[in-house]
Amino acid sequence: MTKEPHFQRVALIGIGLIGSSLARVIRREGLADTVVATSRTAETRRRAAELGIVDEVVDSAEAAVAGADLVVICTPVGAYGAVAQAIAPHLRDGAIVTDVGSVKGAVIAALAPHMPPGVHLVPGHPIAGTEHSGPEAGFDSLFEGRWCVLTPPDGTDPDAVEKVAALWRRAGSLVDVMDAAHHDMVLAITSHIPHLIAYNIVGTVADLEDLTKREVIKYAAAGFRDFTRIAASDPVMWRDIFLNNKDAVLEMLGRFTEDLAALQRAIRWDDGEALERMFTRTRAIRRGVIEVDQA
Amino acid sequence: MTKEPHFQRVALIGIGLIGSSLARVIRREGLADTVVATSRTAETRRRAAELGIVDEVVDSAEAAVAGADLVVICTPVGAYGAVAQAIAPHLRDGAIVTDVGSVKGAVIAALAPHMPPGVHLVPGHPIAGTEHSGPEAGFDSLFEGRWCVLTPPDGTDPDAVEKVAALWRRAGSLVDVMDAAHHDMVLAITSHIPHLIAYNIVGTVADLEDLTKREVIKYAAAGFRDFTRIAASDPVMWRDIFLNNKDAVLEMLGRFTEDLAALQRAIRWDDGEALERMFTRTRAIRRGVIEVDQA
Repeated sequence: MTKEPHFQRVALIGIGLIGSSLARVIRREGLADTVVATSRTAETRRRAAELGIVDEVVDSAEAAVAGADLVVICTPVGAYGAVAQAIAPHLRDGAIVTDVGSVKGAVIAALAPHMPPGVHLVPGHPIAGTEHSGPEAGFDSLFEGRWCVLTPPDGTDPDAVEKVAALWRRAGSLVDVMDAAHHDMVLAITSHIPHLIAYNIVGTVADLEDLTKREVIKYAAAGFRDFTRIAASDPVMWRDIFLNNKDAVLEMLGRFTEDLAALQRAIRWDDGEALERMFTRTRAIRRGVIEVDQA
Repeated sequence: MTKEPHFQRVALIGIGLIGSSLARVIRREGLADTVVATSRTAETRRRAAELGIVDEVVDSAEAAVAGADLVVICTPVGAYGAVAQAIAPHLRDGAIVTDVGSVKGAVIAALAPHMPPGVHLVPGHPIAGTEHSGPEAGFDSLFEGRWCVLTPPDGTDPDAVEKVAALWRRAGSLVDVMDAAHHDMVLAITSHIPHLIAYNIVGTVADLEDLTKREVIKYAAAGFRDFTRIAASDPVMWRDIFLNNKDAVLEMLGRFTEDLAALQRAIRWDDGEALERMFTRTRAIRRGVIEVDQA
């Protein structure tokens, strides 16, 4: 007896941290007869094959999706348009196409126009990750207890949405469905801007003269050390996130820099009351995060 | 037989996270005959006494330092001037006065003019901490494996410097001696700016409309969650750090905002090459931090 959800053939387009973690989940849970993976580079395909986490590794996205009833796009978001164009003629009738990208509006814009009638597009975003990249970096508990947000366009077949939701629940995730634009605004502030800032401060340090730079590394206190970890994330993935969530990121970045200018002014003019007030009001948010963690 | 270093009477002015952790170290290691603590508020004094981590709790800094051969100022930096003025007439000849403040130039400026002849000023900064505050938050392993930077002014008695260094080594710290101005510049970028940015982004979220704010808290991904932890640090302590390391913080903040403007521009103009380049060069800094951790 097969377990629900069950797929005959799952095609993973891209097999980095997220794709390889999902492959491990599908095998552990017995969710597919066959899992086939591909990657743009021969080197990654070779490593994925050596790891033995999928049944087949093939040379092209076209070959991977042939006969697949579930296609999961796990490449950087910037490659989605080309992937959609390549796979469209080879998609099986009734196939579900989903993805794991960190932005959703741009992803729908890139994928939807290429989807043939009878193919179900269910964009998804598992909010999970580490600062490591590549197929070796994956592990099957990556999604446990984390949210996965699905953003199906209006009119998407509810059965297809439910199948994708069930897959993520089997990975241990909590599933939410929301509008793509709303997803992009929330993620801009929870994830994209923090990453941008971490990259930025570590970049500022990279420009310091050598002696100071060595000492910054030596004395990396809690704050800066955390930032270096975040700023070690995959550069291509993050490049594509910023290019594809431009409006929300620029809107939130505008608010952030206005607020930072106010803090800077308070420091310059010795306004201790303003600083203390601004440093105190952040505590309610922290309490909220802790309560949600414990819920 | 007493262990080296050994003090007859250690006075802790302030008994929060750092002061109470140091008290626990001194007791564990048997480094003093008597440890006496005081705090500005009766409530903190009461809690410190209940914890039983010091031998005496007294009502005033003047009473604490009477007869002490080591005085450790552990209050927020903004209180140092008043503390120095209050304790100066009561300091014993030959006493060592040190502190644990996160800025050093301003601390020397606040303390040095009040020090009587025959009293040795050895400013110190244990680079350790958590986001928690108060005497209950301390623990005796807080300083283990962390740096402690001493910034004695020119001409300070080397024996006094060595005694303070030995105290921190017994706490498990690695001790470095450097110029106060240089310390302040390095810490501005490793610690002060990261805290300012964390406070700032969490503050930006605090201003969002309620629905979005709730969702930001719900979906707090790795990036934002880390920032909320940093931004939960003691507001008064951090207010005083920024007011007292103004020049270095404003200099580094200027560089940070220039760099951020360049990233913002690259996003606005779809300059993927610039983004990828900026996101890649940060990796060398991360490698440096990891190598230092493992050394």
